[in-house]
Amino acid sequence: MNAKLTRRAVLSAAPAAGAGLAAPAPASGVEVLSMTVSWGRGQAGVFDAAQYCADAVTEMSDGALRVDLYAAGERFGAFDVFDAVSDGRADLGHSADYYYLDRHPGFAFYTTIPFGMTPEEFGDWRLHRGGAALHDELGKMFGLRLFPCGNTGAQPGGWFIRPIREVGDFQGLRFRMPGLGGEVLKRLGAEILQLPGLEVYQALSTGALDGTEWLGPWADEKAGFMEVAKYYYVAGFHEPGTSLSLFANRARFDALKPGQRRIVETAAAAADRWALHLFNSRNASALKRIEASGVNMMTFPDEVWDAFADASRDVLVEYERDPLFARINGAYQASLRDSSRWLSQSSGVFAARRRRVLGLP
Amino acid sequence: MNAKLTRRAVLSAAPAAGAGLAAPAPASGVEVLSMTVSWGRGQAGVFDAAQYCADAVTEMSDGALRVDLYAAGERFGAFDVFDAVSDGRADLGHSADYYYLDRHPGFAFYTTIPFGMTPEEFGDWRLHRGGAALHDELGKMFGLRLFPCGNTGAQPGGWFIRPIREVGDFQGLRFRMPGLGGEVLKRLGAEILQLPGLEVYQALSTGALDGTEWLGPWADEKAGFMEVAKYYYVAGFHEPGTSLSLFANRARFDALKPGQRRIVETAAAAADRWALHLFNSRNASALKRIEASGVNMMTFPDEVWDAFADASRDVLVEYERDPLFARINGAYQASLRDSSRWLSQSSGVFAARRRRVLGLP
Repeated sequence: MNAKLTRRAVLSAAPAAGAGLAAPAPASGVEVLSMTVSWGRGQAGVFDAAQYCADAVTEMSDGALRVDLYAAGERFGAFDVFDAVSDGRADLGHSADYYYLDRHPGFAFYTTIPFGMTPEEFGDWRLHRGGAALHDELGKMFGLRLFPCGNTGAQPGGWFIRPIREVGDFQGLRFRMPGLGGEVLKRLGAEILQLPGLEVYQALSTGALDGTEWLGPWADEKAGFMEVAKYYYVAGFHEPGTSLSLFANRARFDALKPGQRRIVETAAAAADRWALHLFNSRNASALKRIEASGVNMMTFPDEVWDAFADASRDVLVEYERDPLFARINGAYQASLRDSSRWLSQSSGVFAARRRRVLGLP
Repeated sequence: MNAKLTRRAVLSAAPAAGAGLAAPAPASGVEVLSMTVSWGRGQAGVFDAAQYCADAVTEMSDGALRVDLYAAGERFGAFDVFDAVSDGRADLGHSADYYYLDRHPGFAFYTTIPFGMTPEEFGDWRLHRGGAALHDELGKMFGLRLFPCGNTGAQPGGWFIRPIREVGDFQGLRFRMPGLGGEVLKRLGAEILQLPGLEVYQALSTGALDGTEWLGPWADEKAGFMEVAKYYYVAGFHEPGTSLSLFANRARFDALKPGQRRIVETAAAAADRWALHLFNSRNASALKRIEASGVNMMTFPDEVWDAFADASRDVLVEYERDPLFARINGAYQASLRDSSRWLSQSSGVFAARRRRVLGLP
């Protein structure tokens, strides 16, 4: 996703700028935490995750610890969450770590990387296999505490005007894919265009763009891409499980009472689970409708997956010059290897057999 | 799992009976919720989930809402959680719904059923695709409110002395598998023995038992089964994602203040995610060690999966005489169909390709 979310956030937030600014003065005994997010007010899934977390804090404390939520553009820009929380102009933030690779490339692992972890594998690593300590090491460098707080699930390979038959079909392909995924496709010869979200549909319909990656069936259907691109690659290599984070100013968070700290952490944990299932359940419904609309449901050929893998490795190797990035990558890949073995041999084998014997689509 | 957990719980709780009974008298302004669980004190994973939830409630309220946790046998037996919470002798409980199929068979769907949902699919259904309302309909019949509060992940097909080459190999096989899974294997000709947990290892080593299902690599390794059975079927048909529940007495819960209710709900939600990842991460580590120990890692042949599926269907059809069971099953299967389509076409395809291109085990 990356910049696309932000652009849409800024665009959709524009008419509502100023909304939510007139927060009521807190009653005595009420502590207020300001929270600035990278999303437009009401933006499906991502804003919902932030809202769920904010409401849970406020409600669990019976309003004594109140979170005032500001959408992108209301107090800070979509990409300004990191700095605003880091330097204490906002107490909390909700964003995606990988928007801030220029602060440290290691943040990539806490959103998603090409050929990285599924949401289930990420949860295992982040909660119980050493991921939390490394995340905290990154956060500490910038005065932040970071908590997983939502996950979009796997993001599809995208929409194409013409099918991809072989690696050569990426040569000269005008495609929209931000972030590390876009870097990978460039290495396969694609011309990566970063169009503002609202222009993508138009560009596809006029042929100015040959294809686009987006978020998932739920958002893709809203964008109407099935009307202008007839080949949908549901599985993608680039964002296998995009995690969102709650950002907390470290000094502000540490000064909260123990019960308040536990409330904020637990609210983020509950929002994390709630939002992943929201995305997956909405994606499940939308995929069925997209499939029924006559779109061709596609899978990239094996040689294309091989090429994705080679180019992804090359992109990651460049970042490994940074010692902390290399250390996190080592831990991440080791945990991925163990988790994927267990999940593929248990749930993976089960799901494949179940699909066959129950005749599931 | 079913009875096996309980038996182990009772056994392991026995030496500790009385521990935790001497709860301090609450200070003024402190509200105490008693919580009785189906597990022995410290029982890996399952007791941990209950403890996490109880601690989160106590800590988030700064001790003003204090949960006093009682292991199986301390106040009530392992199987008495349902009744104790239903009639208000305990305020909260932690157990598995499927222990109580004699109260209503529909409870099966809120733990796991043969060929049922993975934990991810279950979360989608329970949180966002109608599962919560039906769970509440069941709970209301018995004065309960029920919240998902932990998941063991997929449970393996089990340990076998001799490999399963064809369906006929189940004929006369002395196997330990409780619950609906055991009913299914009986239809394939197996002799189902319900040995107490601590006797299973011995029975396998003397040949009194030809095989056993257990919990997952983490628990299986602790039990030492790789020493006495050399064929391990990692994927199983019978418990693809075993969900645990927080039970709350409905009247007691509804009389709590709104903030307190939200605290209890949110603690359960956070415990649900935390425990699933705990099981998966521990299972991942243990599976690697089991594999390295020289055990044969096996997958049932396709014709055996077919036979599992046919017999599972027959078992479910008998229960469908109950109209509420039939209604829940209809909703469950429809949601499973949609969720599995999305997850298999996105994460499933991705994970299979990633496994190949990265050379994952």
